[in-house]
Amino acid sequence: MKAIKYQPIGLISSPFRSNVGIPRQAVGAPDIKGTIEIFDEFAEGLKDLDGFSHIVVIFHLHLVKNPRLKAHPPWDGKEHGVFATRSPYRPNPIGISVVRLERIDKNVLHISCVDMADGTPVLDIKPYVPGLNPNKNVRIGWLTNKVQGMNKSKSGDR
Amino acid sequence: MKAIKYQPIGLISSPFRSNVGIPRQAVGAPDIKGTIEIFDEFAEGLKDLDGFSHIVVIFHLHLVKNPRLKAHPPWDGKEHGVFATRSPYRPNPIGISVVRLERIDKNVLHISCVDMADGTPVLDIKPYVPGLNPNKNVRIGWLTNKVQGMNKSKSGDR
Repeated sequence: MKAIKYQPIGLISSPFRSNVGIPRQAVGAPDIKGTIEIFDEFAEGLKDLDGFSHIVVIFHLHLVKNPRLKAHPPWDGKEHGVFATRSPYRPNPIGISVVRLERIDKNVLHISCVDMADGTPVLDIKPYVPGLNPNKNVRIGWLTNKVQGMNKSKSGDR
Repeated sequence: MKAIKYQPIGLISSPFRSNVGIPRQAVGAPDIKGTIEIFDEFAEGLKDLDGFSHIVVIFHLHLVKNPRLKAHPPWDGKEHGVFATRSPYRPNPIGISVVRLERIDKNVLHISCVDMADGTPVLDIKPYVPGLNPNKNVRIGWLTNKVQGMNKSKSGDR
């Protein structure tokens, strides 16, 4: 199939200069602050975003050079198919994080719960609306009873 | 900035042949069934996904030809910046849906809660883990009190 091409709409600034030491999940990083600069030509699309406390950031994991089909997450010491994990080493290295939107200054979003590396290209931003997601009768397979540990973990930990 | 290129990992089959009449939110379409065929070269990445009742599907909205920076959703009759909406007409037309995973036959995922058009290219699949998302102190701006209507609406409705 033909490749799909996207043009970044902005760039993330964060305290993380490499892909080691980054919180593995945004919800585990309430004190980590950063910004998203939305490029001028897309700034008009931010109207009314300031009413939302949280946003969904879709970004390109630009430091990932070696995608794999199997992942070996630290939570259970076993190998899983990459699509059954949140590993960044995926065929299309797309990351999705729900971050807290602290405020917007013109085309700059000030965020917390940052789990992205500095310089990460942003592909899209959507409002976070928890009522649109299922919360009943959800099974989480091999991650059962492991979510609390995930929230506190950083990349590079084992 | 340089364009980012992704290679589809699979294709969606669904009852929707055009982008009119598609449920606007996956959670509002429990009876709509479809499949995701994962291409052979990526099938190894599906190991252990069958333990999850729901999956996050990241897909390319291939029928969107005219992105806009403002959207005019039906919920409140007002214009909003596209990043403050779930409109498909976005600069990078990336869709994210949480669907129910009914079963996996080899490289074919049988799903319900389908809100994608037939032939949609899939970019990534992640396990759905509700405990990783914030659910307290969430403000949803102009969508306040409008989520119930969103769940029942279809594209093309006004």
